[in-house]
Amino acid sequence: MGKYGDILIAHREREARKFLDKIENQKPVFVCTIGNTETAKIPEISAAGKFPEITDYTPAADVELLFYGECRCIDGVPVTPDGIPTPALITRSALILADIPFFAVSGGLRVKPYAPFIDLEGEPGEDIRTGKAVKNVEGVIRRAEVVGRTFSKIADYLVVGESIPGGTTTALGVLLAMGVDAKLKVSSSMPVNPHNLKISVAEEGLKAAGVRLGDLRNEPINAVASVGDPMIAAFSGLVIGAASEIPVLMAGGTQMTAILSVVKALKTEVLENVAIGTTRWIVEDKSSDIKGIVSQISDVPILAANLNFSNSKIEGLKAYERGVVKEGVGAGGISIASFLKTRGKITSEKFLKEIEENYKKLME
Amino acid sequence: MGKYGDILIAHREREARKFLDKIENQKPVFVCTIGNTETAKIPEISAAGKFPEITDYTPAADVELLFYGECRCIDGVPVTPDGIPTPALITRSALILADIPFFAVSGGLRVKPYAPFIDLEGEPGEDIRTGKAVKNVEGVIRRAEVVGRTFSKIADYLVVGESIPGGTTTALGVLLAMGVDAKLKVSSSMPVNPHNLKISVAEEGLKAAGVRLGDLRNEPINAVASVGDPMIAAFSGLVIGAASEIPVLMAGGTQMTAILSVVKALKTEVLENVAIGTTRWIVEDKSSDIKGIVSQISDVPILAANLNFSNSKIEGLKAYERGVVKEGVGAGGISIASFLKTRGKITSEKFLKEIEENYKKLME
Repeated sequence: MGKYGDILIAHREREARKFLDKIENQKPVFVCTIGNTETAKIPEISAAGKFPEITDYTPAADVELLFYGECRCIDGVPVTPDGIPTPALITRSALILADIPFFAVSGGLRVKPYAPFIDLEGEPGEDIRTGKAVKNVEGVIRRAEVVGRTFSKIADYLVVGESIPGGTTTALGVLLAMGVDAKLKVSSSMPVNPHNLKISVAEEGLKAAGVRLGDLRNEPINAVASVGDPMIAAFSGLVIGAASEIPVLMAGGTQMTAILSVVKALKTEVLENVAIGTTRWIVEDKSSDIKGIVSQISDVPILAANLNFSNSKIEGLKAYERGVVKEGVGAGGISIASFLKTRGKITSEKFLKEIEENYKKLME
Repeated sequence: MGKYGDILIAHREREARKFLDKIENQKPVFVCTIGNTETAKIPEISAAGKFPEITDYTPAADVELLFYGECRCIDGVPVTPDGIPTPALITRSALILADIPFFAVSGGLRVKPYAPFIDLEGEPGEDIRTGKAVKNVEGVIRRAEVVGRTFSKIADYLVVGESIPGGTTTALGVLLAMGVDAKLKVSSSMPVNPHNLKISVAEEGLKAAGVRLGDLRNEPINAVASVGDPMIAAFSGLVIGAASEIPVLMAGGTQMTAILSVVKALKTEVLENVAIGTTRWIVEDKSSDIKGIVSQISDVPILAANLNFSNSKIEGLKAYERGVVKEGVGAGGISIASFLKTRGKITSEKFLKEIEENYKKLME
């Protein structure tokens, strides 16, 4: 694994360095795409909320946390069932330290944030076991493309993150529908990855949609509509619209591979301008395999923020080192952008201090 | 009246030149704030739609026209009862010629555009004769401030326009409530300005709200809530959030004075960074008096795009010279920004040609 300051190069060293050269000293804009899927409410599938029902609030609460430093649609902050705080805390710390402007974009929400967001007229997603997961995928993608093009005029490069509980399961669904062997390879926000549950949910969705593995290789819109989620639609459109003009850092874990697959099928050429930016916890995770999935689709580089919370005095942060949460709300990618924008002034260490302070403020 | 290339200086010459010096050679972002008010459906009050009922669609259709060069929620384009096309045509031409990025922001809509927009969680406005015109004004202003601050990080300066049929009547309501003598001074999209109707509607609203002229001088939120519209809330918040950091060109006619009044009451100091940008048709209009209103509030400079359609071969455009439409969708302000951004390469003449071409494309 190569290094570039506090950034790890996890895949495609040469291409990664080229991408980093393009975005170094440039001004990014961060976009957080959010959405809901009923899939998140399947027991044991997501840790992004204390109870399955409350995962509806997590994306809205994450966006509020980014904007205001506190959540408004819920008391406190989104936490895992074990009480580990949302990665939005990392994202907010990076945005503040590097003074990076950001926007929220909704693919389809059940709970809307008490904060401004760009509406793409999408609807919240259904449980993928219905085989009819997302309505009007094409409309959302088209509108997101327009937004992506607009962002390409105001930013040197774009960092796009996501918040959607249940998102790795819907990603698995899309990957399988499009013929990518992602079984046992998608990551989880839980320390023990419930692979078998995810696979059975995704397969039930495919069956309900009358789709066999790989049937929708060239039908990305159909794949998302059948077994995907609204965030994937919004995120894919943003990448297509922006990456034809400026570099785009796709900020997330294995969910990014489903988007990669959709973007590749809709507009392959923009992938020249794309990299995945994630956390060390994802690229070192033994229960998932982001490289193994990416290599099957398009060999874009993978970068990882070398975050390390093992010396934190705060238990909720230390827990990240045990494989809880790992990634989300663009935490890894925006950390990379903040390291680059501040030209090394923000190191992993300083960054941890800022995160700890924001954590304390939040918990007061 | 001073001049600065194709820009007329209609008020406060010295301050206007200072403002122009600040924004020349700078990169603007355009924001179109939209909203609906039931006030627009009072017969004879607005020309922003062929029939009163259809004015609900005008803001959404304007935004679609800006994004796509065609409307999607209606067939054709928004026109006056006489068939004169929306000023969004001017705005789109300027945005294209000068490659200016833009966003739509909703204060509260009855009809949403089939295009991306930033949602501030506002609701469409009621008829101001109820005296309870807008819900949750404070929330919309606060969220708009956040958006304005974000824009201040990605733009050198902001041009903010509006589309809300019935908007001069609601502006009159807010001005009267706040003690500004605006009777017989607000402009109209019609060649004969229905002043008496507007005054009686505004006064009926004030009466229903139990408010006498000037009672709400120091209660801008209450004034908008009683007799204003959702666009005023969104626009005011944007100005407050952005103008503390970057120059803001308020793009519109006499409606801008209601916003000026609200912003002054909420955060006077930002007005240092504000100018009004409109069209020649507004500053030369004999049936209204923008300078007479502005001078009562805060002496910000007034700039006007020296647009002249008298030599156009297209009747619908020529009609602008007879005092129809005059302004809207930020047409005047964004024309000024496009003249400045292209350093005089776009003259009024070239600009008319582009507008005529876009007109023809639209009408095909």
